[in-house]
Amino acid sequence: VSAPVVTFLSDYGYEDEFVGVCHGVIAQRCPAARIIDVTHGIRAHDVRGGALALRAALPYMPAGVHLAVVDPGVGSERRAVALTTDDPRRFLVGPDNGLRMEAAALFGGAREAFDIGRSPEVLTPPAATFHGRDVFAPVAAALADGVAVQRLGELFPPADLVMLEMPRPRVEPGALIAHVLSIDGYGNLSTDAAPHLLLEAGVALGAAIFVVCAGGDAGGRFVRTFADAATGSLLCYEDGRGALALAVSSGSAATCLGVSVGDELTLRAL
Amino acid sequence: VSAPVVTFLSDYGYEDEFVGVCHGVIAQRCPAARIIDVTHGIRAHDVRGGALALRAALPYMPAGVHLAVVDPGVGSERRAVALTTDDPRRFLVGPDNGLRMEAAALFGGAREAFDIGRSPEVLTPPAATFHGRDVFAPVAAALADGVAVQRLGELFPPADLVMLEMPRPRVEPGALIAHVLSIDGYGNLSTDAAPHLLLEAGVALGAAIFVVCAGGDAGGRFVRTFADAATGSLLCYEDGRGALALAVSSGSAATCLGVSVGDELTLRAL
Amino acid sequence: VSAPVVTFLSDYGYEDEFVGVCHGVIAQRCPAARIIDVTHGIRAHDVRGGALALRAALPYMPAGVHLAVVDPGVGSERRAVALTTDDPRRFLVGPDNGLRMEAAALFGGAREAFDIGRSPEVLTPPAATFHGRDVFAPVAAALADGVAVQRLGELFPPADLVMLEMPRPRVEPGALIAHVLSIDGYGNLSTDAAPHLLLEAGVALGAAIFVVCAGGDAGGRFVRTFADAATGSLLCYEDGRGALALAVSSGSAATCLGVSVGDELTLRAL
Repeated sequence: VSAPVVTFLSDYGYEDEFVGVCHGVIAQRCPAARIIDVTHGIRAHDVRGGALALRAALPYMPAGVHLAVVDPGVGSERRAVALTTDDPRRFLVGPDNGLRMEAAALFGGAREAFDIGRSPEVLTPPAATFHGRDVFAPVAAALADGVAVQRLGELFPPADLVMLEMPRPRVEPGALIAHVLSIDGYGNLSTDAAPHLLLEAGVALGAAIFVVCAGGDAGGRFVRTFADAATGSLLCYEDGRGALALAVSSGSAATCLGVSVGDELTLRAL
Repeated sequence: VSAPVVTFLSDYGYEDEFVGVCHGVIAQRCPAARIIDVTHGIRAHDVRGGALALRAALPYMPAGVHLAVVDPGVGSERRAVALTTDDPRRFLVGPDNGLRMEAAALFGGAREAFDIGRSPEVLTPPAATFHGRDVFAPVAAALADGVAVQRLGELFPPADLVMLEMPRPRVEPGALIAHVLSIDGYGNLSTDAAPHLLLEAGVALGAAIFVVCAGGDAGGRFVRTFADAATGSLLCYEDGRGALALAVSSGSAATCLGVSVGDELTLRAL
Repeated sequence: VSAPVVTFLSDYGYEDEFVGVCHGVIAQRCPAARIIDVTHGIRAHDVRGGALALRAALPYMPAGVHLAVVDPGVGSERRAVALTTDDPRRFLVGPDNGLRMEAAALFGGAREAFDIGRSPEVLTPPAATFHGRDVFAPVAAALADGVAVQRLGELFPPADLVMLEMPRPRVEPGALIAHVLSIDGYGNLSTDAAPHLLLEAGVALGAAIFVVCAGGDAGGRFVRTFADAATGSLLCYEDGRGALALAVSSGSAATCLGVSVGDELTLRAL
């Protein structure tokens, strides 16, 4: 029998002891649990960025308790939640702010929702500003330890869960309007558009493209991978998340185009 | 029976192989050990910042060997130490520079001190500039593996341990003088003052405050959590460490106030 | 019996889910595997920096599958490889771009080379830009799980492996010409020169030195460790990798000298 798994994503960063403390809490409550860090480098308070990283990661994670904390509303009236899914071995735990919606959809959506804010597992008194340590980590560990979710919170209708508003790409005659959803460590831009939308906008694989954004405009090419573009040139491709993305070969598209997360991009055949 | 635990904190950062190499050394000497990283993002050579993070983290960590290395004096005459505490399952290992003093106090103070610089476990010859790998990690792993601490070093009086000088907050008529002890990834400032000192200085929870620092001054509010302050406004609150802290809602207090670790702050009722 | 070990180095960084996803893939394919992260902070696309970190780390790592991915050519015709070494318990897995050459030499060089690009373990269809997840992690996990390497790829001559070009230090009359190979989180500069070359250039341990680089020049001292130099002064020493290195005591040599990775340095007796 494998160890129970807790996956853990947050915007806590790596500068201080926040992530380590949550590991400690989980290890104390469920010593057998194996913790897999998804990332803790989500931009501070970027719930949407966290939701996208979680959606991209969970299909590759063993079934278990999926703890995710990006929580600008910590200490407010926002709920703390544990969700069940169509996969009875998978639970989603964290603040009720939409962070889990994209990931839950992968497993049939949130089946049941439990308010865990007053769970008997909560470390008391919980700090008003660190529910990761005092609420989410101990409840996640209890779930990993086999405690029934019904004993960890109060049932409420999943329809009451906070939804996350996401931008939507659109195809116009001869153009695709997309939005930058995230920027990785290489400066590559992942968008909200699926690659087939670029085909719908009249751009064939291999064709030259023209990109317009707030920071200016640039010519590039729609290719399969980095090596298909000349060093220093802009390329448009399908990234590991299955999304249309922009990169500069051996460079940073974020810097070259001067764009930020949330910016709109217009892509056309050249 | 649970696996033996080694917790690990350092200022090695994440750019290179230093942390990974120490994990490897521990895994070779004590394959059963579970390593929990507290953080490796302590500012380079910031012994005081490391001491505070360690103190904040250890109450949440399983008992075990607590390895911590922030070591600007590596290779000099400073001692390498292993400390016992009132909890016979907890050991503190690292350079003798005060890094462990705050954490040791949580467990009754250093009960016995051992100089491990010439331990039979040391990788020989130890590099003059990487005692984390060659001295501290192997000794920590041997302790986790059950070797008696008496066999790992020479006893010396705990009174000879290097102490760490810490700033002290003070209450003056109508004002609290505090100091910035650390800045987290959100730009929140944790101080050396306990929240009740602000009450003693005449500021009630919910009241408006005025903060003066080297970078200028700003008005804010003494509240319970981030959501109690308007977006972009300054707030003063009790943080997860139990310390009085300053934040800017959805922003960075460090940037807004222009302060650094060690800076003095004056807080008054407005 | 210890758990099988997979060590993992990459330039994926800590901002997004790339590292976590690879952990998930390995945990699903070989739940018993223990994963040791060497570092994921290698500079983007810096194959040489990755090769040096891998060489510095592997002597301290338990035998196992050594996964390393710095892969600017992902999706191109470059091979994906698994290498065997003289140590039958050690395998090296990743893109064929020289990243493994320095590390393989530690274990007698690449004994056999297997092209794993069409391994039955590959997640299909592999994304053109994320072979870490779809090719390297699953093959590494299968090796850790005990699958014979012959079943994971097609044998080809190790002589066909891509070699990495490395700079070479040289001693001239009264001077050592060295190159900056990496810069750590403290701003310390590790060079391609062994410390004995400085002795050959006429600089004795303890002597004053003069360093010339693109950013200017500076005086310092050839010492054993940081504490042997005055605060704020430049020192030259043998670092944890066994290489000649430059540091500024309680400061950053990279900043003070204004140098970057790859820069040439000239060191002379003052």
